[in-house]
Amino acid sequence: ILMSLYCNRISYLFINFALGSRYVSKTATKSVSEFEYDAPSMKTAVPGPKSQELLRQLGEIQNVGAVHFFCNYEESRGNYLVDVDGNRMLDVYTQISSIPIGYNHPALMKVMTNPNNVSTFVNRPALGILPPENFPDKLIESLLSIAPSGMRRVQTMACGSCSNENAFKTMFIWYRNKERGYANPSEQEVDTCMINQSPGCPDLSILSFMGAFHGRTLGCLATTHSKAIHKLDIPSFDWPIAPFPKLQYPLEEFVRENAQEEARCLEEVEDLIVKWRQKGKPVAGIVIEPIQAEGGDNHASPDFFSKLRNIARKHGCAFHVDEVQTGGGTTGKFWGHEHWGLDDPADVVSFSKKLLTGGYYHRDELKPDKPYRIFNTWMGDPSKNLFLSEVLNVIRRENLLEVVTRSGKALLQGLYTLQTQYPHILSRARGQGTFCAIDACNDATRDSIMIKARNKGLFMGSCGEKTIRFRPALVFKEYHVHQLLNILNDVLAEHK
Amino acid sequence: ILMSLYCNRISYLFINFALGSRYVSKTATKSVSEFEYDAPSMKTAVPGPKSQELLRQLGEIQNVGAVHFFCNYEESRGNYLVDVDGNRMLDVYTQISSIPIGYNHPALMKVMTNPNNVSTFVNRPALGILPPENFPDKLIESLLSIAPSGMRRVQTMACGSCSNENAFKTMFIWYRNKERGYANPSEQEVDTCMINQSPGCPDLSILSFMGAFHGRTLGCLATTHSKAIHKLDIPSFDWPIAPFPKLQYPLEEFVRENAQEEARCLEEVEDLIVKWRQKGKPVAGIVIEPIQAEGGDNHASPDFFSKLRNIARKHGCAFHVDEVQTGGGTTGKFWGHEHWGLDDPADVVSFSKKLLTGGYYHRDELKPDKPYRIFNTWMGDPSKNLFLSEVLNVIRRENLLEVVTRSGKALLQGLYTLQTQYPHILSRARGQGTFCAIDACNDATRDSIMIKARNKGLFMGSCGEKTIRFRPALVFKEYHVHQLLNILNDVLAEHK
Repeated sequence: ILMSLYCNRISYLFINFALGSRYVSKTATKSVSEFEYDAPSMKTAVPGPKSQELLRQLGEIQNVGAVHFFCNYEESRGNYLVDVDGNRMLDVYTQISSIPIGYNHPALMKVMTNPNNVSTFVNRPALGILPPENFPDKLIESLLSIAPSGMRRVQTMACGSCSNENAFKTMFIWYRNKERGYANPSEQEVDTCMINQSPGCPDLSILSFMGAFHGRTLGCLATTHSKAIHKLDIPSFDWPIAPFPKLQYPLEEFVRENAQEEARCLEEVEDLIVKWRQKGKPVAGIVIEPIQAEGGDNHASPDFFSKLRNIARKHGCAFHVDEVQTGGGTTGKFWGHEHWGLDDPADVVSFSKKLLTGGYYHRDELKPDKPYRIFNTWMGDPSKNLFLSEVLNVIRRENLLEVVTRSGKALLQGLYTLQTQYPHILSRARGQGTFCAIDACNDATRDSIMIKARNKGLFMGSCGEKTIRFRPALVFKEYHVHQLLNILNDVLAEHK
Repeated sequence: ILMSLYCNRISYLFINFALGSRYVSKTATKSVSEFEYDAPSMKTAVPGPKSQELLRQLGEIQNVGAVHFFCNYEESRGNYLVDVDGNRMLDVYTQISSIPIGYNHPALMKVMTNPNNVSTFVNRPALGILPPENFPDKLIESLLSIAPSGMRRVQTMACGSCSNENAFKTMFIWYRNKERGYANPSEQEVDTCMINQSPGCPDLSILSFMGAFHGRTLGCLATTHSKAIHKLDIPSFDWPIAPFPKLQYPLEEFVRENAQEEARCLEEVEDLIVKWRQKGKPVAGIVIEPIQAEGGDNHASPDFFSKLRNIARKHGCAFHVDEVQTGGGTTGKFWGHEHWGLDDPADVVSFSKKLLTGGYYHRDELKPDKPYRIFNTWMGDPSKNLFLSEVLNVIRRENLLEVVTRSGKALLQGLYTLQTQYPHILSRARGQGTFCAIDACNDATRDSIMIKARNKGLFMGSCGEKTIRFRPALVFKEYHVHQLLNILNDVLAEHK
């Protein structure tokens, strides 16, 4: 078992980065972590022969069209993912943004070797009926210690989709209770709900945005509008879909144009709320990501979100901020919505991925009025809460939000430089913290850059039509930024 | 860490059970497991003072109306659940039927202490894009080793609801591909699906049964019809709902009446399929539980399921058997549908709970034609597969399916005796393996019996309107059956 010291205080000097030059470290005291590797190390093209053989085997069991390669997680460390062919890559996609503090972090290994924790892994409880003794304490020390402004209630769930599904249900229940004046449901409501008919199953809707991604189960999927392949052939709900602002980047250079675009979208939101109310399908809630991720890393301004929040309040809709991808520190604040600077940013905030457990916070007003309305067998997994507590300790101890802010600035600055250097290939660099992205001129070029970079030891993600997304772990330092930029620069220099 | 021997070869003699008499063991060689406890042991009424204080604390964070008491999982063993007030109860509900081989089974503790497994817990992969090296092997040794007849493909998911949601999606995709002759989707389909409209999001339906429970996310919930509280206020789909046979028990005494009732329901199924096709909402799949669990432990005959399977085939609908609660050995066979004796029992079989991971098997014809159609971040959790492999080893080594069959016979026989003894209170005893149930005369009586039994150290579950359900672990022996029946008998004797 790996228990070497995790060194988090490496400082590298950014010396010189101009056309064609390289990032180099000049610090004499390069106390490289004994825990992490130094750099990528490539033995084969990716996927290598072992991955290809395993792909064939798994292909007998599942569709493997989305599999990049097979991993050796035992040998992976920190920011470096090792594959079964012995290739070691700098990983800035981190399992679709779900590895918070890198691979095999010693603090998480310790959770596993602590005998007091064994029972939590071995006996997964039905949390809604038989919680463990330490459950309130664990919630307080983990999820409630990072609760969004104004929220003291949290419900854990197993994954991001279940979190959003249940957040939607919470909003529907709240909305209908309001509508019926908190009276008991009528006999007709009780009877009709059993056969999927209104008024028991009312024609309520959730307003979502074009380009949004909120998950793939049927409720979530009705609010997801990022790619056709996610939605094709699946029945859906007739719910309103507003345009998400298409902003120009860098944001600070297009303030006026972007404000106009945001105003246009907000106007459309209000129109849709009125229209759907008239259609008899009132909007119970509005759901939005602080940055649209899967849809192509689309940003909007704090002013946009603030006004949207006000529109929700004005029309009596709940305001649900989906932080499944933006939450957990990757934007430089723990929650993406903290950048808006509002005291009262949301009614519901859902999470998963870097939080290791799914779930959602909600304001007191939205608490379910009766048991078994928001319920399932497991209601989350306390073993994930154990890991989360330790992740939060590491984030605090190692000041990882500051690390993210610093690395994010270096990364975005580097992307700006690259797009200046390769304007025919790259554009629209954007980001918050290390939650960064850049567009290629088309999808084929994007895909080709990603494959070439992978073969040089840099593993990135894609999103939208032609976007490269960067989703490193919170332990991604400036040193790693420089590795990333050097590899990307090499790939672009070779690109025809 | 507990590592004592788990003794599984205790034989007890069933001596004498008549009115007022008690089950006693006369075996001289009572080699009681060093691992498990002997019997319940009660210190307070349940919930005790410590549970009540924790309830108050958790109530600040969540609705706790469904919480029975708080547990000390460290001290729980085998069939005995210990609460925070030191009460030790014989648990025949097992976390809503999700603890396969009892609490703190030594074989599962070993999984935790094996250093080779640490990385699997600490680095949860995005299985759909970056599976671990041993993933195909682990699937083969765990889930595929117990694959239902005719199925070689399996997709893991995080929970029961996600399993069913994705199983539904798999059926919709398969159905539409069939309809369009496996051609590429039209431009119109691609465009309309992005805005939730047909033909891209087609008006397809899933046929379900009254009394069914398939989960609580919006897709699943549209096929769930067990209790109003699950469905009230949540928008739904206009999908067909067939009557589930209301059989008389014991089944063997009402063969003719039950066959008539099943024929009536099957006729209705065909009518609904035709009607919904005419409505423009064709039935892509039929979903059914081998025994309706949450809806009140409603059984149907192998003949019913066989004919239903044929109806599905005749009308071109996929046939989805939801084994989330019936799977994992509790009926005496690994899958509930094995009791039907069909070579070709289903197109899709979903699971969760006792399997520790969610997921579903499907026939080759239903494999997704493209990547990313059935997808999410985690696609299950390999750490749960580790536990499942060990559970399957224990089931084989300890012949637990035989144990279940034997205990189940003793339990059902005991329930028959009790309902003969207390005909004004109990009726309709029924079961398969240890998946048993009995009805009280009304819900208040049922609830009162359950609370009294709990205070004597027997923790049972409820379902339907007035049913007590028994869902012990697979390590529930005849010895435990006798304890259960003795306590229940005491409660009934005291009941006014």
